[in-house]
Amino acid sequence: MTKISGVTITPVAFRDPPLLNSNGVHEPFALRAIVECRTDDGLVGLGETYGELVHLDRLRAVAPAIEGLDPFALNELHHKVAEALGEVPAGAPPARSHWSRPAEETFGAFEVAFFDIQGKATGRTVAELLGGAVRTEVPYSAYLFYRWAEHPADPGYEPDDWGAALDPADIVAQASRMVERYGFTSLKLKGGVFPPAEEVEAIHALHTAFPDYPLRIDPNAAWSVETSIAVARALDGELEYLEDPTDGIDAMAAVAARSSMPLATNMCVVELSHVPPAVEKKAVGIVLADHHYWGGLSGSRRLAGICETFGVGLSMHSNSHLGISLAAMTHLAAATSNLGYACDTHRPWQAGEDVVAPGVLELRDGSVAVPKGPGLGVELDRDALRELAEQYERCSVRRRDDTGYMQRFDPSYVRLRPRW
Amino acid sequence: MTKISGVTITPVAFRDPPLLNSNGVHEPFALRAIVECRTDDGLVGLGETYGELVHLDRLRAVAPAIEGLDPFALNELHHKVAEALGEVPAGAPPARSHWSRPAEETFGAFEVAFFDIQGKATGRTVAELLGGAVRTEVPYSAYLFYRWAEHPADPGYEPDDWGAALDPADIVAQASRMVERYGFTSLKLKGGVFPPAEEVEAIHALHTAFPDYPLRIDPNAAWSVETSIAVARALDGELEYLEDPTDGIDAMAAVAARSSMPLATNMCVVELSHVPPAVEKKAVGIVLADHHYWGGLSGSRRLAGICETFGVGLSMHSNSHLGISLAAMTHLAAATSNLGYACDTHRPWQAGEDVVAPGVLELRDGSVAVPKGPGLGVELDRDALRELAEQYERCSVRRRDDTGYMQRFDPSYVRLRPRW
Repeated sequence: MTKISGVTITPVAFRDPPLLNSNGVHEPFALRAIVECRTDDGLVGLGETYGELVHLDRLRAVAPAIEGLDPFALNELHHKVAEALGEVPAGAPPARSHWSRPAEETFGAFEVAFFDIQGKATGRTVAELLGGAVRTEVPYSAYLFYRWAEHPADPGYEPDDWGAALDPADIVAQASRMVERYGFTSLKLKGGVFPPAEEVEAIHALHTAFPDYPLRIDPNAAWSVETSIAVARALDGELEYLEDPTDGIDAMAAVAARSSMPLATNMCVVELSHVPPAVEKKAVGIVLADHHYWGGLSGSRRLAGICETFGVGLSMHSNSHLGISLAAMTHLAAATSNLGYACDTHRPWQAGEDVVAPGVLELRDGSVAVPKGPGLGVELDRDALRELAEQYERCSVRRRDDTGYMQRFDPSYVRLRPRW
Repeated sequence: MTKISGVTITPVAFRDPPLLNSNGVHEPFALRAIVECRTDDGLVGLGETYGELVHLDRLRAVAPAIEGLDPFALNELHHKVAEALGEVPAGAPPARSHWSRPAEETFGAFEVAFFDIQGKATGRTVAELLGGAVRTEVPYSAYLFYRWAEHPADPGYEPDDWGAALDPADIVAQASRMVERYGFTSLKLKGGVFPPAEEVEAIHALHTAFPDYPLRIDPNAAWSVETSIAVARALDGELEYLEDPTDGIDAMAAVAARSSMPLATNMCVVELSHVPPAVEKKAVGIVLADHHYWGGLSGSRRLAGICETFGVGLSMHSNSHLGISLAAMTHLAAATSNLGYACDTHRPWQAGEDVVAPGVLELRDGSVAVPKGPGLGVELDRDALRELAEQYERCSVRRRDDTGYMQRFDPSYVRLRPRW
């Protein structure tokens, strides 16, 4: 029987443009951890997750504990992760339940690698292992950002060619280029950056320019309940959904009760324990799945079943990511029939840097075709991995800090929630 | 790629003793349908479900539609079943949701056979395909029944050697023999047969004879809310759970609010749509999984995730069944960590008749060891299958009718819910 014989964790950094959000601005490099699980019969499974030190520490604490595991033993993996992170007494029987978010995050990285091995061992795609693709192409949404043209403090850092986006006309121009280049058919604006009236104008402008496109705005809880309700009224009839206008289940419920469009979240419902109160209070119409923190692909499917049962919609969240995550997201979305919305992705902002060999994960007509190879269907590009690992060593980012980075340019900047 | 090349549906009948319940009495034969799915590369996957004509008709309607399917394509199977049963328009995209109970039942039979093939194709047990066993032995509960010694109208029908059980002393004797023979460590009494005071006495007697054993009683909704509350009070401190004392989510909620022990159900929560109102009304503390109607093994795992999320316990239901079902139940229970109770099984009443080769599914120390062979780990005994199929042809039972059978001996008998 195939066993895990070794694990390699490689932190990588990739170039990230100065994208603005309610916490500040993206730093010049985004971090990820690349997980390789090797088996005694020569297979390698890939995973990808957050690259901050706290995550690396957890991955490294777990890695020795999972050697010897059968790559089909997801329940045992779950238990070993919890045990290695000190969450269950040593010797307790394996169980799947009662987990912290850090443990679910750590599990998710390895679980995707285990699925990749399962697929390679059986000649099956991950989507097939999840019950089979119900769609051959997974639609993604354009992820529009207010942004600066370049990182101001780093003159040696070659800017991308997207330029600044600071007003409604810039956002429409960015959307036009995204649509033209990648064929997106739905649009999401990261808000919470400028006063709500300006962002409402941006949505109006997008709605005028793309009248048939589903539109979303996500201010990351930058708004009070009152502001959220006012924005929802101003955007009545223009939004597919309003994502995290305000903070917390109770505040979201107050907004939801007075808004015409559904509210979505990746902030107030991010663990299983958040689901019952959110359902009871009718706080959200849509939950964003994300295998990186919802307990991997299996945990995300559990979430999908819960959402279906309780009449809650399902979409998919994205952080800045590389191709391993995009492949996992695509297989998961392809096999999840009630994932009824285009998924988020930061992919267009990556400027071509990746750790997987190119050609498989192209965005065409706004969609990514489900990779056909066994497992995730992507292969590590070892040269690229080495380059991005060296970039990690060279860069100074070790913990994502959009607020601190913003304060380098605007010392008066403070993180406020709500800001308006 | 392996494809389904043929399906055989075989109705079988096996001897069943005159077990009493709130609807009447078991007929001399119980019916099951044995499903064999063959692949173009020579594998055979087994499934087992209800054998009544209405179920056979559905299985036979679906069988031609699933030829050509990949045995990993569970989502597509789900869609094909719905399509063949007229539940979705032809040509609609595959989806997993919005299903009737008949469709979920029909899906479940084929889905287990598909899992069996997946296991045989990959050299994996079904439990491994479900994420891995968290227990190597699955505990089952003794299923005690009031019963007659023999089927009264059929002098040629050789009775079993269990004798009659009509009062508390008989039930204790039956329990003692069950425990001695099979090592059960929890006991369930099928109630709803005699006036509640008599059944309360039976539980008192069991509690006295087996003071450390978890006890359950299941009157199949034979009681009113008031009677249920009175029984719950009389049995305070003696029951692990009280199963379906009364009928419907609202009535169960009324009982639950005034009972010290959790209520369990396989009657008022049997579809996903029943879960939200049951949760909202706090109607049940425990839901009984059953892959035969909860959408197969995958649907049962979805239920398990929902129960875990909403703090609802999980146990497992049984109808009269053969070894294929017992194997599937055992793999599912082994891989489901929040299945926290001994499962139900009618196995000891079967008098040794089965369609699978003996030796794998022994009840020892109250548990069944998870079969180690690939897939379900059981093999058809073709001679036994032929015998039970011939028995089906000879016997007159085509639809389970415990009430009609009872009325042959007591023309005044009527089915009442509640009876008390």
